[in-house]
Amino acid sequence: SRAAVSMHFPPINESVDKGNPKVVTTVKCEDIKGKGVYCRCWRSKTFPNCDASHVKWNEERGDNVGPLIVMAAKPAE
Amino acid sequence: SRAAVSMHFPPINESVDKGNPKVVTTVKCEDIKGKGVYCRCWRSKTFPNCDASHVKWNEERGDNVGPLIVMAAKPAE
Ligand code: FES
Ligand code: FES
Repeated sequence: SRAAVSMHFPPINESVDKGNPKVVTTVKCEDIKGKGVYCRCWRSKTFPNCDASHVKWNEERGDNVGPLIVMAAKPAE
Repeated sequence: SRAAVSMHFPPINESVDKGNPKVVTTVKCEDIKGKGVYCRCWRSKTFPNCDASHVKWNEERGDNVGPLIVMAAKPAE
C-alpha cells in the first residue's frame, strides 16, 4: 500500500515548508558575517541555518549528516 | 529487530563518506565563482555539489528537498 511504502521510504524533509514543491534556499556571501552554518539534515528549528539538531538525528538513526559551512570572504586590505 | 527499525527509519545519508561520523563540508566565499549550488538531499554524485539528483528523489519519494545556493560576493568596484 502507499502507506506502507511511505513508512518504509519516508521523505528526507518531514516538516520544512512542505507546501513548497522544492525548497531551494539562496544566500549571498555579502550577507554572511564570519561564517554561515547551513542545515543539511532538515531537522533544524532554525532552517536554513543549522541548530545542531543533526547531533540528535545522527545518534538516534545511526546517520552521519552534518552542515555546510560557508566562510565569508575576508574584506580586501 | 534492529533490521526492521533500520528499514522503517533509514538514514538520510545512504552513501556519502559513511566512514566519517559526521559529514561537515566547509567552503570559502572567495573560492566560489558566480554561485555555488550545494546538495542537501545527499543523493548527488558530485556531493557536496548539487547535480540535480534531488529532482528524481522528490518524484520518487514525494519529497520536496532542494539545494542551497550561495551567491559569490561581487568584487568591489
Ligand atoms: S541542524 Fe541540520 S545539519 Fe545541523
Ligand atoms: S542533488 Fe542533492 S540537492 Fe540537488
